[in-house]
Amino acid sequence: MKKQIVIVFISVFLVQIMGTSCTKKQVSKHPILSLTQESKSLIKKDLEEIPLLQSSFDELKKEADKAIREGIDVPTPKDPAGAYTHNQHKANYMAMYAAGTVYQLTEDETYADFVREMLLEYARIYPTLPEHPVKKSYAPGKLFWQSLNEAVWMVYTSQAYDCIYDFLSENDRQLIENNLLFPYADFLSIESVKVFNRIHNHGVWAVAAVGMCGLATGNDELVERALYGVPVNGEKVHAGFLVQMDELFSPEGYYTEGPYYQRYALLPYVVFAQAVNNARPELKIFEYRNNILEKAVSTTLQLTNTDGTFFAFNDAMKGMSFLAPELVNALDIVYANGSHDERILTVARMQDQVILSASGYRVAKAIAEGQTKDFVWNSMQLGDGAKGDKGGLAVLRSGKNGAESALMMKYASHGLSHGHFDRLTCNFFDNGTEILTDYGSARYVNVVQKEGGRYLPENDTWAKQTIAHNTVTVNETSHFDADMDEAEKFNPEGFYYNADDPNFQVVSAIEKNAVSGVQMQRTMILYSDTDILGKTVVIDVFNLRSKQKNQYDLPWYYSGQFIYTNAKYNAFTTTQHALGNNYGYEHLWLEAEGKADNGVQLTFLSNYKFYSIHSETNENTEILMARIGADDPNFNLRREPCMIIREKNAGDHTFVSLVEPHGGTDPNMELTHSPFGMVKSIKNSSNDVNYALVEIKTQNDDSLTIAIALNDNKENSEHMLSIAGKEIKWTGFIAKIQNK
Amino acid sequence: MKKQIVIVFISVFLVQIMGTSCTKKQVSKHPILSLTQESKSLIKKDLEEIPLLQSSFDELKKEADKAIREGIDVPTPKDPAGAYTHNQHKANYMAMYAAGTVYQLTEDETYADFVREMLLEYARIYPTLPEHPVKKSYAPGKLFWQSLNEAVWMVYTSQAYDCIYDFLSENDRQLIENNLLFPYADFLSIESVKVFNRIHNHGVWAVAAVGMCGLATGNDELVERALYGVPVNGEKVHAGFLVQMDELFSPEGYYTEGPYYQRYALLPYVVFAQAVNNARPELKIFEYRNNILEKAVSTTLQLTNTDGTFFAFNDAMKGMSFLAPELVNALDIVYANGSHDERILTVARMQDQVILSASGYRVAKAIAEGQTKDFVWNSMQLGDGAKGDKGGLAVLRSGKNGAESALMMKYASHGLSHGHFDRLTCNFFDNGTEILTDYGSARYVNVVQKEGGRYLPENDTWAKQTIAHNTVTVNETSHFDADMDEAEKFNPEGFYYNADDPNFQVVSAIEKNAVSGVQMQRTMILYSDTDILGKTVVIDVFNLRSKQKNQYDLPWYYSGQFIYTNAKYNAFTTTQHALGNNYGYEHLWLEAEGKADNGVQLTFLSNYKFYSIHSETNENTEILMARIGADDPNFNLRREPCMIIREKNAGDHTFVSLVEPHGGTDPNMELTHSPFGMVKSIKNSSNDVNYALVEIKTQNDDSLTIAIALNDNKENSEHMLSIAGKEIKWTGFIAKIQNK
Repeated sequence: MKKQIVIVFISVFLVQIMGTSCTKKQVSKHPILSLTQESKSLIKKDLEEIPLLQSSFDELKKEADKAIREGIDVPTPKDPAGAYTHNQHKANYMAMYAAGTVYQLTEDETYADFVREMLLEYARIYPTLPEHPVKKSYAPGKLFWQSLNEAVWMVYTSQAYDCIYDFLSENDRQLIENNLLFPYADFLSIESVKVFNRIHNHGVWAVAAVGMCGLATGNDELVERALYGVPVNGEKVHAGFLVQMDELFSPEGYYTEGPYYQRYALLPYVVFAQAVNNARPELKIFEYRNNILEKAVSTTLQLTNTDGTFFAFNDAMKGMSFLAPELVNALDIVYANGSHDERILTVARMQDQVILSASGYRVAKAIAEGQTKDFVWNSMQLGDGAKGDKGGLAVLRSGKNGAESALMMKYASHGLSHGHFDRLTCNFFDNGTEILTDYGSARYVNVVQKEGGRYLPENDTWAKQTIAHNTVTVNETSHFDADMDEAEKFNPEGFYYNADDPNFQVVSAIEKNAVSGVQMQRTMILYSDTDILGKTVVIDVFNLRSKQKNQYDLPWYYSGQFIYTNAKYNAFTTTQHALGNNYGYEHLWLEAEGKADNGVQLTFLSNYKFYSIHSETNENTEILMARIGADDPNFNLRREPCMIIREKNAGDHTFVSLVEPHGGTDPNMELTHSPFGMVKSIKNSSNDVNYALVEIKTQNDDSLTIAIALNDNKENSEHMLSIAGKEIKWTGFIAKIQNK
Repeated sequence: MKKQIVIVFISVFLVQIMGTSCTKKQVSKHPILSLTQESKSLIKKDLEEIPLLQSSFDELKKEADKAIREGIDVPTPKDPAGAYTHNQHKANYMAMYAAGTVYQLTEDETYADFVREMLLEYARIYPTLPEHPVKKSYAPGKLFWQSLNEAVWMVYTSQAYDCIYDFLSENDRQLIENNLLFPYADFLSIESVKVFNRIHNHGVWAVAAVGMCGLATGNDELVERALYGVPVNGEKVHAGFLVQMDELFSPEGYYTEGPYYQRYALLPYVVFAQAVNNARPELKIFEYRNNILEKAVSTTLQLTNTDGTFFAFNDAMKGMSFLAPELVNALDIVYANGSHDERILTVARMQDQVILSASGYRVAKAIAEGQTKDFVWNSMQLGDGAKGDKGGLAVLRSGKNGAESALMMKYASHGLSHGHFDRLTCNFFDNGTEILTDYGSARYVNVVQKEGGRYLPENDTWAKQTIAHNTVTVNETSHFDADMDEAEKFNPEGFYYNADDPNFQVVSAIEKNAVSGVQMQRTMILYSDTDILGKTVVIDVFNLRSKQKNQYDLPWYYSGQFIYTNAKYNAFTTTQHALGNNYGYEHLWLEAEGKADNGVQLTFLSNYKFYSIHSETNENTEILMARIGADDPNFNLRREPCMIIREKNAGDHTFVSLVEPHGGTDPNMELTHSPFGMVKSIKNSSNDVNYALVEIKTQNDDSLTIAIALNDNKENSEHMLSIAGKEIKWTGFIAKIQNK
């Protein structure tokens, strides 16, 4: 009791002292963008009490101190991404942001001086800067080769300026605003109006940059531009921050380029939203469109393997995870301004960092107070497109907190310039490991030797092509003939989704346009069986319909080491050749080809666990073992294996497959258990192309049938099939019929 | 205070009760092999106080309970390794050991009953058992296909018998000893005298088995056989446990098969030594041969990467580490019976398990009392052979606790049947990762689909061959023409070792017999330079002398992803062929071939860090990029890459190379630093084949020269070379001459 009173007394006293020390300046609204007067006081008061806050501050201070030690370097822009002047200007905005924030939290003027001097140096060179000499972008910048980086610079620099606003003389402010910030903001908005008004993540960055500059400088016109777009020919436009919030995310918060780019796109949204909320709380920006920002962050956190790495579809860099700095910002800001979902505190703890603002403070404090709850990965269906009607994707999860295995099936729109031709592809994660893999992008980001860190030629020739994915390639030609403009015109359709029964979760989607004359429908089931299988398996029914005869290739890309196949094959042992010469086939070495007339099985070992893929085959089916790496003169590609199931001269055809985990090895104990799977066979007994009747037999001769009405997704339709004189009846799109 | 007194009172009281309850049997010396009456009391008293002891007990009890639930199953021996009857007999001895130990610690007779019943069942079937039907071993067993497993069975079973000795009726004992244990011990010793008297790890297992049986049953004759061998034709022999301790390890405790097998060989040594020490303390077995057992354990712990995995040379399974159960036993036993080295407690903590004995008790208690010190990896030279004069190996370490990087150079003897033809090979570890790799063995231990878990054909055709290692293959023929008997006849010679200066550690060794007419000398330096390089690098001087012209291939097997080479090469993009057709060359795909007349550089990315290999070349040098995987119809091999530096038509030749770590990438930050190395060039300026004068130039045009007197390892010899009119003088085998 006594102690509490003393603390209150001291607090009051401190506030008084601080109040006094501020009297020489008029009461200021700065900082306002991220830190505020109020949050600053809270952080200073509790810094030593909250470990995560202290360590985050120490980290930022270290960064600022390092920059100050190294001195100010504002070079004339010259280099492309990854090289000196590019890197230096990037380092500069980070340094100014760090120093500005540390100044606010320490009131040590060394930090403010550093920011001031650097801004003055920028203000000195900016007025005469021409367009950047590296002319490779559709939207060039001045400090950087593309205006995207230009905008990022301003998002951070505005925050630094905001932090030292009160420290600067009126004269300094005039200089910096008139010679640097205002012309810079005009360049990003009025002079780059197409980018600025574009509904695209580049547009969001520009909008946030200009808006933050406007809020930091008190320039309302800039803020208006940011919120509502730059009028064209005096006309109001359908653009600006609110429109970007309306249109760039689906209603569930999915961004069409996929989680790797969603992570990047989120940062300007949340940072600017925070600033808007501080400066114009009446806009209730975090409640906008049913809390769309919180949904977008939540969706990004969900589209991950249990190690936090993002599902790597589209142009993703593998290894990028929810520990990325963009998600530190995003998580802190939506936690504090949203529903305070304590489960995401688990992720914040893994991030081991918070931003130095009211939001970061709240997160760190909640963690210190023990409010963290387990993060839960949920099964979910996400629509694509602003209205959620442009296809989508489904994630089916099983195990405690959804953390055991995850099946992702993608039937989203193309995904703009970062999309791949991978309609109806899938990935499977288990035991913390990506088991059925997506190649991601062919790129070594920021590695100069690899084409300056840009996307490599093999990104187009390999990574984007259909055959690089776990979906069907028809006649060795990628979906939409690998024409992005065509692909952007059409989206697949979600046909069925039901995860109500956690032990029998189903998704089905249809693609009618990717291959002329061929309709593809994929139905996948995450099936947890305690009865005859005793485990969770993936069941895949890939139905193709065509009046012509085609070749269908269904590859399974797997991680780990080949253990066994029942296929009889010839391996290429002294010479080997590429599988084809176009649409990515030129990048696959054919290691072996063979047959398995009565069903093929492939067993492999991944992260000390066995997995078997079982797939129905017939006398026409070819089994190809292939490996990425042909036509790769610069060794840009990873040598990963796949098994391709090739169906020749097929019109209507249904691939039915099952993937089961089983047993494993222990390298220290040298113990192996269950190296053989439980499944003996899988086949489709339906003769009617409108139905699939998947029969699974186990090694114990138990069996299970799954019936699917491919054409009818109504839950109350009644169906009957007659197979070998036996009538099979069920209600709804799908039913499992266990007949042990 | 009060509490303590109460506890003491209760303890005294308990001891009295227990004493009383024991009076119905006469005071027994059982158990004696591992647990003893004294250690049993200590463990029971402190079990709940010492977390590691409690969790280890819980684990063992879980195992025993599971076995009891599953019931007794003693099948007629039939199957090979990995299959049912083999696995069941293995499970049985573990179950008996667990149940016996749990009985001692709980006095719950359920456990003793289980062991009794199983022993009686074995005693019922054993007398009429023929030799095992799977006749693939040079020394077959009865329960198992090879007598090695037969011995392991007895090592564990003797301990179980010891634990329930007092529980059994005299009648049971007679039955079990006369029908099972004694004939079993006779089979292992008198009837398998060659194995039993052989100086080999199979011999050690047999000796330990028979000795433990003798101690458990009080049969002194068996103990004598174990300690001193089985007389042949009435003559005393040079065999038995003491001779095995004399001859199987080098004076430093190195075992010629390498650490993977040393781990396995250690178990019977330490377990039997513990039993001998309990029963015959007067033998002072742990002090024998200057504490050779403690040295052997220490050496095994040292021959590891910092993740605990063993250096994988010879027939090693990759992934096996000092967390293996054999090393739990070995560590506990030598800690307690040796010098109580508190640094190995770090390893015990990682093992997270102790054995239930006085030794395990001491380890768990020391950890609970906070006595753990950091484990330190040391630079060391280890001789091979009983006298340490059959070659050896050196490990050079740098960084805090030796934990940053490690260079291993091997000049040991062949390593018996598990040796590889890899004279003067090396491996490099950095950042917790194996950077310059050894393939290990081609085997999936206990994976039935992979030839029943045995060594695969590719172990002989690939893994053992010289070209599979980071050493020189001459004229595409393995060392000793891949003839093990020849290889066993000769060993390389350590020529120089000096790790006194932690920043300039050197090893040099000579091999004269591996290739007829060619002398090979390799000198490697782990050089930590704070001046012009600012890092730790590996410098390699591989000197070859021959009167004939030869082709020399020096491969560098690396982990990770190719980033860059300066070589101008042609890549095979649409077809590729195997590099050769014998001595392992048939298993390499040639991916590219090229030239780099003025020195070759290869940069790769491994575990988010860059590494560059620099090597001197000339106009005759060919650069080959190759990848393991040709002639591999069963997909048994891992597809790992290498660069081969090929010198054609060379007689005397010195390869000089440098390996440097630099910079890295952060996948979450998408930052890359120092993708280029510091080294610009390396070359040997000496024209005299007796000397090497290695000149290293940096990107900053600093330079460094290392002078080596290849023929003269005396520290006080004075040397002078005249190069381009400049005199270079130094004293001793090697000197570095910095000329910035």
